[in-house]
Amino acid sequence: MTNFSVLILGNASAAPTLTRSNTSQLVNINEQYFLIDCGEDTQTKLREHKIKLQLLDHIFISHLHGDHYLGLMGLIQTMNLLGRTSTLFIYCPANIEEIINVHIKFSESALKFPIQYQLVNFKKSEIIFENDKVVVSSIPLKHRIPCSGFLFKEKPKPRRINSTAIKQYNVPKHQIFKLKLGEDYADEDGKIIKNNVLTYDSLPSFSYAFCSDTKYEEQIIDVIKEVSLLYHEATFSDEHSDRAIKTFHSTAKQAALIANKANAKRLIIGHFSNRYPDLNVLLEEAKIIFKNTELAIQGNEFKITEDQ
Amino acid sequence: MTNFSVLILGNASAAPTLTRSNTSQLVNINEQYFLIDCGEDTQTKLREHKIKLQLLDHIFISHLHGDHYLGLMGLIQTMNLLGRTSTLFIYCPANIEEIINVHIKFSESALKFPIQYQLVNFKKSEIIFENDKVVVSSIPLKHRIPCSGFLFKEKPKPRRINSTAIKQYNVPKHQIFKLKLGEDYADEDGKIIKNNVLTYDSLPSFSYAFCSDTKYEEQIIDVIKEVSLLYHEATFSDEHSDRAIKTFHSTAKQAALIANKANAKRLIIGHFSNRYPDLNVLLEEAKIIFKNTELAIQGNEFKITEDQ
Repeated sequence: MTNFSVLILGNASAAPTLTRSNTSQLVNINEQYFLIDCGEDTQTKLREHKIKLQLLDHIFISHLHGDHYLGLMGLIQTMNLLGRTSTLFIYCPANIEEIINVHIKFSESALKFPIQYQLVNFKKSEIIFENDKVVVSSIPLKHRIPCSGFLFKEKPKPRRINSTAIKQYNVPKHQIFKLKLGEDYADEDGKIIKNNVLTYDSLPSFSYAFCSDTKYEEQIIDVIKEVSLLYHEATFSDEHSDRAIKTFHSTAKQAALIANKANAKRLIIGHFSNRYPDLNVLLEEAKIIFKNTELAIQGNEFKITEDQ
Repeated sequence: MTNFSVLILGNASAAPTLTRSNTSQLVNINEQYFLIDCGEDTQTKLREHKIKLQLLDHIFISHLHGDHYLGLMGLIQTMNLLGRTSTLFIYCPANIEEIINVHIKFSESALKFPIQYQLVNFKKSEIIFENDKVVVSSIPLKHRIPCSGFLFKEKPKPRRINSTAIKQYNVPKHQIFKLKLGEDYADEDGKIIKNNVLTYDSLPSFSYAFCSDTKYEEQIIDVIKEVSLLYHEATFSDEHSDRAIKTFHSTAKQAALIANKANAKRLIIGHFSNRYPDLNVLLEEAKIIFKNTELAIQGNEFKITEDQ
């Protein structure tokens, strides 16, 4: 079973409130963790959820507005205090290194671990990170400053072995990896056994797209097509669409339109303006267009599964 | 009645925990507010205590270790969002302007209010701020990087008018201000009425000294002599005095020794290392030397009064 989940650590746009912290999310793909954005006090939020900071190796920062990264300096400092020595990878569409370095300079406290910065292409989708199970790509967003979303995609999984059939056809162990890749099997007599006789279909590969902050931008639809779970910012309701245009943000309706056009399986909306004490205004607006919408409530974990 | 109080917004050294945020304190002298240090998430702590951010004009930063200032960028950003236009004054012994400016540069969001930075002398005590009621001076501390404490002193108050005596001696109204300053009164016949016949003693003037972070440093004693309330860091217990020496911090015992030698009326200790889940270890250690010691518990407000 795959474990693929997204934990909402903060969902407020602009100023944090007592119940809504600034944007941060923790993506967990089979216990490999990816932090997306790092609003002020993210380290405490991680602590609340008992996430060990040592487990974080990859941090993705969408853009350099304070509500998306001001917790990063504190997080790095605490990692240092905890004795981290392994490389930390930070992906960002702007030169965040300059910011980190000026803090380090004045503190006169050298980090005991290296940071590797990777500049993210925010004009077109490119692969940022890849391992044997996951690929992360940039999603070009349109905000007031360089801004990138992030698409997490599980790689295709191996076909599952049918143990009974394997025994029946006496398939030797060293042939198993080929079956998992989808190859047919030729027995000692040269007889071909079709792969689908010996295996079951692979488990599905899931994906998660994080899109914040952005104005309504149809160019992202191709990038996030058929995504399992889409997070799209919904700072405003349609009533304030003029404000959304002016500030390069989206409305709940627009988030739903994107989900619809991308044929996403499921949508979560967040990055709420403080003007909405009752978030159902935004939820209901989105649901009219895209039924499978939920609010990215702080502290909620969204598990991505087949039967969602 | 004077209202002179200190609200503890955070008291943790190094990494924040779920119950202890990083250093920040709010000094309230007759509803004029002074923020001292600004650890991560201070803006939310202020919000918890219903302090309006617009009331903050003066922020004092002791030094540029992250646990003492990483909340400043978020606070400034939120002040900007709230539409602030009036000047913000920031006092710091190092060039914090460079840090603020690099954040503003990348956010591409100009501040709508000016910030005036004042470099604080951290090698000797100098007046940093003064108005008609209060004087704030630097306290030279000894830490790993330039670091200053802050001494808040109420100016001497006017003598209080004895209304009965004023009537009895027919003192005209325009002479009252002289009486408040301590002058005697000469009546129409040239007869001198002593000031103390016409007035009561002034209310006492209180003072508060904030000393964090510092190694044990007897040179501060003269600066904080007779202080009404002393906050002194007590990162460690005496058991870890070697660690205190190495990191340029103090033990609870040393904080108490300073309070004793300075003849402070009252001591609060804070900036606790996370290694002490039970802070009574530190409290009891200090009390042996300076009885009138309390813990700077987060959320507690310390009122400075005559009968303390």
